Amino acid sequence: MQQKIRVTVWNEYLHELSNPTVAAIYPQGIHHAIADFLGKEADITVRTAVLRQDEHGLTQDVLDQTDVLLWWGHKAHHEVDDEIVERVYNRVLEGMGLIVLHSGHYAKIFQKLMGTSCSLRWRESGEKERVWVVEQGHPIAQGLDHYFEIPQTEMYGERFDIPAPDSLVLISWFQGGEVFRSGCCYHRGRGKIFYFRPGHETYPIYHQPEVQLVIRNAVRWAKPVPSLAQPLSGGSTPPLEPLE
Amino acid sequence: MQQKIRVTVWNEYLHELSNPTVAAIYPQGIHHAIADFLGKEADITVRTAVLRQDEHGLTQDVLDQTDVLLWWGHKAHHEVDDEIVERVYNRVLEGMGLIVLHSGHYAKIFQKLMGTSCSLRWRESGEKERVWVVEQGHPIAQGLDHYFEIPQTEMYGERFDIPAPDSLVLISWFQGGEVFRSGCCYHRGRGKIFYFRPGHETYPIYHQPEVQLVIRNAVRWAKPVPSLAQPLSGGSTPPLEPLE
Amino acid sequence: MQQKIRVTVWNEYLHELSNPTVAAIYPQGIHHAIADFLGKEADITVRTAVLRQDEHGLTQDVLDQTDVLLWWGHKAHHEVDDEIVERVYNRVLEGMGLIVLHSGHYAKIFQKLMGTSCSLRWRESGEKERVWVVEQGHPIAQGLDHYFEIPQTEMYGERFDIPAPDSLVLISWFQGGEVFRSGCCYHRGRGKIFYFRPGHETYPIYHQPEVQLVIRNAVRWAKPVPSLAQPLSGGSTPPLEPLE
Amino acid sequence: MQQKIRVTVWNEYLHELSNPTVAAIYPQGIHHAIADFLGKEADITVRTAVLRQDEHGLTQDVLDQTDVLLWWGHKAHHEVDDEIVERVYNRVLEGMGLIVLHSGHYAKIFQKLMGTSCSLRWRESGEKERVWVVEQGHPIAQGLDHYFEIPQTEMYGERFDIPAPDSLVLISWFQGGEVFRSGCCYHRGRGKIFYFRPGHETYPIYHQPEVQLVIRNAVRWAKPVPSLAQPLSGGSTPPLEPLE
Repeated sequence: MQQKIRVTVWNEYLHELSNPTVAAIYPQGIHHAIADFLGKEADITVRTAVLRQDEHGLTQDVLDQTDVLLWWGHKAHHEVDDEIVERVYNRVLEGMGLIVLHSGHYAKIFQKLMGTSCSLRWRESGEKERVWVVEQGHPIAQGLDHYFEIPQTEMYGERFDIPAPDSLVLISWFQGGEVFRSGCCYHRGRGKIFYFRPGHETYPIYHQPEVQLVIRNAVRWAKPVPSLAQPLSGGSTPPLEPLE
Repeated sequence: MQQKIRVTVWNEYLHELSNPTVAAIYPQGIHHAIADFLGKEADITVRTAVLRQDEHGLTQDVLDQTDVLLWWGHKAHHEVDDEIVERVYNRVLEGMGLIVLHSGHYAKIFQKLMGTSCSLRWRESGEKERVWVVEQGHPIAQGLDHYFEIPQTEMYGERFDIPAPDSLVLISWFQGGEVFRSGCCYHRGRGKIFYFRPGHETYPIYHQPEVQLVIRNAVRWAKPVPSLAQPLSGGSTPPLEPLE
Repeated sequence: MQQKIRVTVWNEYLHELSNPTVAAIYPQGIHHAIADFLGKEADITVRTAVLRQDEHGLTQDVLDQTDVLLWWGHKAHHEVDDEIVERVYNRVLEGMGLIVLHSGHYAKIFQKLMGTSCSLRWRESGEKERVWVVEQGHPIAQGLDHYFEIPQTEMYGERFDIPAPDSLVLISWFQGGEVFRSGCCYHRGRGKIFYFRPGHETYPIYHQPEVQLVIRNAVRWAKPVPSLAQPLSGGSTPPLEPLE
Repeated sequence: MQQKIRVTVWNEYLHELSNPTVAAIYPQGIHHAIADFLGKEADITVRTAVLRQDEHGLTQDVLDQTDVLLWWGHKAHHEVDDEIVERVYNRVLEGMGLIVLHSGHYAKIFQKLMGTSCSLRWRESGEKERVWVVEQGHPIAQGLDHYFEIPQTEMYGERFDIPAPDSLVLISWFQGGEVFRSGCCYHRGRGKIFYFRPGHETYPIYHQPEVQLVIRNAVRWAKPVPSLAQPLSGGSTPPLEPLE
């Protein structure tokens, strides 16, 4: 019997507590909205964690039992403790999957794993986004049509200061005239990382079926691959072949 | 219930009939050796096809019912009918996975999908090969250690005239002084392609557990991703937004 | 003293002879419009060739003296002789640069080098295109701002059935709602290939400064890199290290 | 007239002062050995900087006047001030080229730009290395044959914990049985980064013509591409198209 994928959904969980618009859309917080639809999958088991918990809810023990971590943050990136960032980073290099959502582009953990500023253009005008699939054979595109639309969203535009993705799956069109690499896959260490753009807190984007489908696909893609190789690289090592 | 992955193992099947050394190692042919270990997997169902069958055993019907095609050829690449090559090519663009083994680097179908000569250095001296894993988080590397060895093999060396792989998973070391990109992943159309170097007919390489593990992993990685998007691209299309 | 880059601009040259709109924009043909601005560069020397010349103007001798070939074709791709396609293909693998323009996406030579169908969505409505730079440090982006606009153009939309580019430099936004990977770099053999989307025959796109800048940059990027390595790969080869 | 490429060669410069073997090979330090052969090029102007200088010789002013920075460090990576690392990092994102040599794989600046541990296997046995060219059309491969050899070196072996390179140009073979991705190109921000493996301090590797050729090629490849786009990404931005 196959083991379930153990997912932890992390959320800053501040907008929902202070902004009635956000609270109306996500009464239990974005983390619970995501945990709810993921938890309905037979092969996934979910827990949540938030910024204001001890150690942001990300103890070593929680991370050790996490196969895929989802990350939503926006206005309190600087409040995330560097020690916890380091802990998450080490788990990714060990193989834990990481799915970074929307404004998580500026999370310390994403910047650290990308090695770039992760800056971008942005505008909050509630405009339309159309997300195009450019790599149809990728498992994260499973079940999508040529594109899907998000009726109202915050715009993120290029140039997005990221490394060229190992696989670029989605590109967004915006009504106001911009484009954006919206679905980006990376391998880092033994871990897999997926950046997924949609998901602004003032719109019900995580209630949208296509968005949920992409996140479910991404969880399955990002799950760790068991490895016999210990440690990650090898360190000092004797020759495998005779040297004169 | 998950559907089984429908695999077709294609083999030129000429060496086994004329060369007693090869026949001793693969009495039923390379295709049956591979089909045997794949067929033991609960999520895989296998059939075989060979060059000398009608339409090389690759009728449209067989291909339509194939999720992943494995290809082993060596001395009769030129005998493969161009029409069948075109048929396989179209199925790959539609989403069928293709795993090209060893001397299949010179198969018409591989050259057509790569767009390059696929030439390489080679030497048949029965030397040792050590296959190193360079992308440990890739599903094709699942269950491998840092490296595995093939005691005796034909050497393939760089420069291998292929496009840079979308993911490079394995690099080989050879006793005689060469290196080779031995495990290369590509997306083409909706299909996924894996080139896997090991497997010369005069050595029992497909009986080796690590080689079988890589091929099993590759089958699961290469299986098609169901897509709603029809046709592949779209052709002539009206505007999605109003144009003045 | 540095040698000049020897460019050949190839054009189908049919629209200009039969369509007065096109003839008004490109009185001497698209090839001459491009040759004119390239020829003003101190480090470039240009010649042209067209479909209706003997051997389409692409004799072995011409190709042997070409460092970078530009290719514009549209309605007569099928008239290009397979033997000439093979000749161009071999020169690319040997190191000649190839810049494929706009509707050249369906040229036999591009399909052969890509290994995919190169199909796409399209619409001829004279809409606006905005071309965004996503890899600002790439030499082909030199001198560009965040984006440039093409006031009226034919739309090409995703999914563009190409291999993931080795470098993706430009992504287009279209007024009608689509996006497109408009500037794509590839290595094939020893040659470098750049696909550049803009350039429909019924709009004066090759007269636009930003478009000319991209083409000049691309010529410099695509020029061959002298190699001592002969032949391309190596063929049968004795061991470099002693084998027991 | 073309501007010269302004190179700064940075060296830890500790081994040379304490180890007579190293001092015998590089009497003026590794930085001067490299600066000497680069300084002979008509299109390059060179300066040097070392760890024990104020601000490690890398003042903002020096970096602002540096087009390409070369980095050699080994036993004192931890002594490099985080503020200077940040300064170099920002310059790379702005467009400065960075060439990281040999044991610089563990430099803070390289780890920060890669987002991974950059760990590897290693062995100091003076064994032979053979460096194979796998992307012959890349400008960094210009003038190389199929391979070159380094008679005696420290071994670095896979798994090298780096992101998959944007272009992989060189792969090394080692006598003791390992392989290594020895020439790796990356775009980060507007900057270009080249990691080049050869160069252990106890062997005269930087006196070797092929090694010098690769470094000269890399300097030319890594030089900044002038950009009109300010700032890097764009920040908050009004719509380019009318929104209802």
